[in-house]
Amino acid sequence: MTLTEQHPIMDGRTTSAPLVRALRGERGPRLPVWFMRQAGRSLPEYRALRAGGDMLQACLTPELASEITLQPVRRHGVDAGIFFSDIVVPVLLAGLPIRIEPGRGPVLDDPIRSASDLARLRPLDAEALEPIRAAVALTVAELGSTPLIGFGGAPFTIAAYLIEGGPSKDQARARAMMHADPQSWATLLDWCADITGQFMRAQVEAGASAAQLFDSWVGTVSALDYERSVAPHTRRALAHLDGLDVPRIHFGLGTDRILTQIAAFDVDAIGIDWRIPLDEASRVIGDTKPLQGNIDSALLSAPWPVLREHVDDVLRRGQRAPAHVVNLGHGVPPETDPDVLTRLVAYIHEHDAASRE
Amino acid sequence: MTLTEQHPIMDGRTTSAPLVRALRGERGPRLPVWFMRQAGRSLPEYRALRAGGDMLQACLTPELASEITLQPVRRHGVDAGIFFSDIVVPVLLAGLPIRIEPGRGPVLDDPIRSASDLARLRPLDAEALEPIRAAVALTVAELGSTPLIGFGGAPFTIAAYLIEGGPSKDQARARAMMHADPQSWATLLDWCADITGQFMRAQVEAGASAAQLFDSWVGTVSALDYERSVAPHTRRALAHLDGLDVPRIHFGLGTDRILTQIAAFDVDAIGIDWRIPLDEASRVIGDTKPLQGNIDSALLSAPWPVLREHVDDVLRRGQRAPAHVVNLGHGVPPETDPDVLTRLVAYIHEHDAASRE
Repeated sequence: MTLTEQHPIMDGRTTSAPLVRALRGERGPRLPVWFMRQAGRSLPEYRALRAGGDMLQACLTPELASEITLQPVRRHGVDAGIFFSDIVVPVLLAGLPIRIEPGRGPVLDDPIRSASDLARLRPLDAEALEPIRAAVALTVAELGSTPLIGFGGAPFTIAAYLIEGGPSKDQARARAMMHADPQSWATLLDWCADITGQFMRAQVEAGASAAQLFDSWVGTVSALDYERSVAPHTRRALAHLDGLDVPRIHFGLGTDRILTQIAAFDVDAIGIDWRIPLDEASRVIGDTKPLQGNIDSALLSAPWPVLREHVDDVLRRGQRAPAHVVNLGHGVPPETDPDVLTRLVAYIHEHDAASRE
Repeated sequence: MTLTEQHPIMDGRTTSAPLVRALRGERGPRLPVWFMRQAGRSLPEYRALRAGGDMLQACLTPELASEITLQPVRRHGVDAGIFFSDIVVPVLLAGLPIRIEPGRGPVLDDPIRSASDLARLRPLDAEALEPIRAAVALTVAELGSTPLIGFGGAPFTIAAYLIEGGPSKDQARARAMMHADPQSWATLLDWCADITGQFMRAQVEAGASAAQLFDSWVGTVSALDYERSVAPHTRRALAHLDGLDVPRIHFGLGTDRILTQIAAFDVDAIGIDWRIPLDEASRVIGDTKPLQGNIDSALLSAPWPVLREHVDDVLRRGQRAPAHVVNLGHGVPPETDPDVLTRLVAYIHEHDAASRE
């Protein structure tokens, strides 16, 4: 096996892909578009394939994870695949018995809430990531010149699940621990940073062309707490990608008040949710980074002319940023009509071509 | 009955109360403090009184609503009572069969989702508000010089319940209707504005010394949508208080990106959630209004020195605003130890006195 085979990114097969160029800050001949959660419940072929099987088991079965990743790329013609997995996969691989309850989300029956609970945190063995590497390798072989985006959960979001024991409304227990026991907090978040960093690194080493860090719950953290008790751990997670020549994306929900802090991370692009317009987000960070976003997924169920008008507005506002990767402002809702997504991809590609004529 | 008896606010019994003075922008001899949701599940005397009875029925039983309102004032020594009721009470009084499911929230089995559903919206008969007026009158007679705060839900938050049929994660159906059917949206929100405006007005006419509009769900609305499709209806709700000489408070969760729009409303003070520091919030709105907030309720479960340090920080930052009403950044969590709240009130009053020495 040559070094190129071990590190497919080095073969340059995706370096001129519209997604990779846009994440690098270049405005190329085609506006790239992909959708967070494009792989999954909105697709009938996904529901047929999973047919009630366990979610995390699917993530750890390379052929299945790969096929699910490829489904939306085939169907919609998006400019990237997003690896089908879950942010808690590395938690499970590190030995904590976390599971995903359908309709609820990740659940840990015995949450991490005290200094003594920290003894249950074990390092993530590199071997354990083998099914992830295998799934990525299978996927990139199929994708060819279409890039695969790897991902991981940000330390705050993973820690919130571990402390709360499941999804929660405002992560109050997690935020209480942050203040009440800052030492345990820091230990736990460093652990989360390391496992999620290793998880992302494994995906990139196996062939992913970009990596996105998801901080889904960070919208409940105050700006002060973010700077002091969250951002250092996010930096630690990102540092696991050092030395790998792939662009990095940060995405969080409800980040408007911490955008300048996010822009200071070592990331190439920032995902913006639907709450603030892209031109405003770009202004806030001094037009320094490419932006990804931010079609309001609530409008996917609106009549086409209404959705189109909204998309036109997003594309126009996105022009302020150095480059723009079109996406939703949040994940695809499970009840989305997949045909709307397909039509959206075609529209964005055509619209973009038209605007250059 | 004299005019004064009909309109107790005119008797001036609360005009020099610390709360009312602070809401008017004056820094008086005492820093006022109260807690959103101070009346309710955190108090054992409340749980004993309700003993599983129906929530909305309790709201419509004057003696019960009044007693529940008074409980935390007696126990904690807070500077105001907040009327015990629910933002959906006027919905029920206008004839829509909404109910509150314990552990879930307001539920409307047959949601309002189309133009034809609008036919079910009837005007709110002034007579129907009689139990509210009676409860307020009983309460203010007991409160004496301690002000009672009346309240109502903002049109967006009420409409979100009616459209979704219950609590929802990101109000996607409501936000979809806003775009897909703007005419029905406007009609529905005007209806919500009118019923909630009448509800607030009835409380003030019966003796409440201030009124607070709650927009709990507005954090999911984009800044653009807020300006275009939400703010006009909030203004309409507030206009129902015109001619009544009581201060108005606006409170919403996740409002950091729309603070300047909120500051432009005809309100006297703005409630800030825990996400941004008060000095920053005050800076954003040009130090134009008194602020209310914003102790992080997640810290109510932290050790006292940790909570105290946080409170000190909140008080220090609050000094930037023209005046400060101390409160949480959100409602009291049901599992809160009420003794912590009592201690907090004493600490804030002492601390304030100490800082003046």
